[in-house]
Amino acid sequence: MRTRPLKVALLGCGVVGSEVARIMTTHADDLAARIGAPVELAGVAVRRPDKVREGIDPALVTTDATALVKRGDLDIVVEVIGGIEPARALITTAFEHGASVVSANKALLAQDGAALHAAAEEHGRDLYYEAAVAGAIPLIRPLRESLAGDKVNRVLGIVNGTTNFILDKMDTTGAGYQEALDEATALGYAEADPTADVEGFDAAAKAAILAGIAFHTRVRLDDVHREGMTEVTAADFASAKEMGCTIKLLAICERAGDGASVTARVHPAMIPLSHPLASVRGAYNAVFVESDAAGQLMFYGPGAGGAPTASAVLGDLVAVGRNRISGATGPGESAYAALPVSPMGEVVTRYHISLDVADKPGVLAQVATVFAEHGVSIDTVRQQGKDGEASLVVVTHRASDAALGGTVETLRKLDTVRGVASIMRVEGE
Amino acid sequence: MRTRPLKVALLGCGVVGSEVARIMTTHADDLAARIGAPVELAGVAVRRPDKVREGIDPALVTTDATALVKRGDLDIVVEVIGGIEPARALITTAFEHGASVVSANKALLAQDGAALHAAAEEHGRDLYYEAAVAGAIPLIRPLRESLAGDKVNRVLGIVNGTTNFILDKMDTTGAGYQEALDEATALGYAEADPTADVEGFDAAAKAAILAGIAFHTRVRLDDVHREGMTEVTAADFASAKEMGCTIKLLAICERAGDGASVTARVHPAMIPLSHPLASVRGAYNAVFVESDAAGQLMFYGPGAGGAPTASAVLGDLVAVGRNRISGATGPGESAYAALPVSPMGEVVTRYHISLDVADKPGVLAQVATVFAEHGVSIDTVRQQGKDGEASLVVVTHRASDAALGGTVETLRKLDTVRGVASIMRVEGE
Repeated sequence: MRTRPLKVALLGCGVVGSEVARIMTTHADDLAARIGAPVELAGVAVRRPDKVREGIDPALVTTDATALVKRGDLDIVVEVIGGIEPARALITTAFEHGASVVSANKALLAQDGAALHAAAEEHGRDLYYEAAVAGAIPLIRPLRESLAGDKVNRVLGIVNGTTNFILDKMDTTGAGYQEALDEATALGYAEADPTADVEGFDAAAKAAILAGIAFHTRVRLDDVHREGMTEVTAADFASAKEMGCTIKLLAICERAGDGASVTARVHPAMIPLSHPLASVRGAYNAVFVESDAAGQLMFYGPGAGGAPTASAVLGDLVAVGRNRISGATGPGESAYAALPVSPMGEVVTRYHISLDVADKPGVLAQVATVFAEHGVSIDTVRQQGKDGEASLVVVTHRASDAALGGTVETLRKLDTVRGVASIMRVEGE
Repeated sequence: MRTRPLKVALLGCGVVGSEVARIMTTHADDLAARIGAPVELAGVAVRRPDKVREGIDPALVTTDATALVKRGDLDIVVEVIGGIEPARALITTAFEHGASVVSANKALLAQDGAALHAAAEEHGRDLYYEAAVAGAIPLIRPLRESLAGDKVNRVLGIVNGTTNFILDKMDTTGAGYQEALDEATALGYAEADPTADVEGFDAAAKAAILAGIAFHTRVRLDDVHREGMTEVTAADFASAKEMGCTIKLLAICERAGDGASVTARVHPAMIPLSHPLASVRGAYNAVFVESDAAGQLMFYGPGAGGAPTASAVLGDLVAVGRNRISGATGPGESAYAALPVSPMGEVVTRYHISLDVADKPGVLAQVATVFAEHGVSIDTVRQQGKDGEASLVVVTHRASDAALGGTVETLRKLDTVRGVASIMRVEGE
């Protein structure tokens, strides 16, 4: 074992950072044995220096994160601040001053992963970020290492615990969206401003990262089609149950039709109860991976929280620490496939559409004709009368999003169609 | 990209080996891009040289595996022969002649992992074996890398597809063991001699490997308590259903009571239907991992088969190939914790015991007294009369295996106890 310690700076000391510091202290001997050298907490950059931080030497605490990463004697910088700036500048500066970086920053990786990887490579350092996607669940490493000899075709996952908690609550109690959100907020599963979660921004960042790694190409956050789950209703869950389905907010990354492009999207979708993702409860995350040789794999676990995220950060810390000692670097960005990202219109899937229609003869024929004209084949139709109006539930065969969009646009113009109550994709069949 | 190819020798060209060779050929460009150098199949050692092997140049085929691994120009040797010898000698010789090794050999790793790791280290080479446990499911790498900064407390898994297929069939159809085994054999899920699977030898080898990696200690095959599943009956499944459980053959590796030792065991057990492992169907595998910081993780996928196993082998091939180019080695054996393995008697769990007893007053009191005398606390008792005899189903609270064993021994001596119909552990609660 090397006796000179690896010097680690911690940027951010909130829920995750404080847990990283705690485990680094309490499990110091184990970490040293696994890395091959002791690790030393060399500095902790925080915004509020006066806050009492149990177990952290106040002499290590600084508000000047930039000065910390410029020290030049750091081996590893752990970035758990989140957000774009100052995280981006700090990571870049860390590389310039010879440190490797472990980050949990999904937003930054999704937006600027390529530039950060390039900076790491330029300086011969590592950039690891297992904690950026699905918390403690090993996912980045399995995708970029374990499956490196395979061809991944699809990644289908529940990667946001807040929205899964809300949807699970709606499913099991019949609650509406607002009621379930209120409970999630009260229990600390949702933030005061839940926008990033419920509008799918968080999941979209993870989808961009996963798609890039899975398909060895570059997928930017803007490439990801994103729909939130705020408009999912109790009625949608009732419809899903009739289909033998439940509703999940899914991140879906796929090779498109001929394999020459990829797609990435986040939206609520019906998924059969028999699918392993359907039984992922509460704030848990799970990601389904389909590949040529391995077939179907699933990775399941807590997707967030201080300790689970710290577990992922520290796993990376051990790997990066070993690399520092041996003078090697781990796998960098693998984007050689350079596949274009197809627009949402080219995504092919099935749809569940609820229409409010006039309750008179010929309406079904009229509606069916519109589907046919747009080349969207109908699987099943269910018609229900209610108070002079009727509802029509159409489930389609596989069709492109563009064709479905055109169908719905035409349907909306029909006099006999009073409204489109909901459109939901059906996945995982 | 390096232009000089990495030379790979393949030992064994059966179901797995031929799939490895096929993917190496058809995905050569992808593998080269991911490794940073082309890979060249430099030789294939087989037992039957005359067999036609599609896509493999006959000039590469040899029956002299020893001469192949002694060539001295090999970068990587892929061992998919299985069994102890000649695999062990060939791997050792490969290290001596400068090659790194990728193996899928669970029996050998479980028996001689320490010596093989030592040989790899002595020669500065890699020994990777993701394919040895749970086929395509990334498990070795997550345990030894992703969770390297965490403390794993328990590994609980279905790691044998054949027995899971049989037990699932018994569960869903009510079939007996022999009938379900016959179907597994007919469908190719069980081998003509199913001993290694149904008697738990295969699962025990995997348990030894998993326990060693999870707890950073050395666990040999002989340290693993092993019970097969040939005596599980349709009546056991009926009892399990009454408990809200199903029956799985589980590999269980745990830290023992005070954390100063570990245990590893393979046996059939009841597991609640609400546990994620309960819904693992057919020949699939799944492994549940519990750790201090990450909490509960699950890894799920196909546990065997040519293509899935090849996926794991090729993932290792890419990692080892990258290491060859950079001159680094990946993580070797981590056994620094050097924890003793406690005997089965010290394992603490719950038990479901079915007794055939005389149908007369006082029997229950007598039986309950025996449990009390051995310090085994009873959770529930259910008594059912049938034809002058009665059956007594006792479910205990947590107790040591030794205490339970003593209890059963005393029970067998009671005149009023006609027989012990079954004893089944209850796990995953």
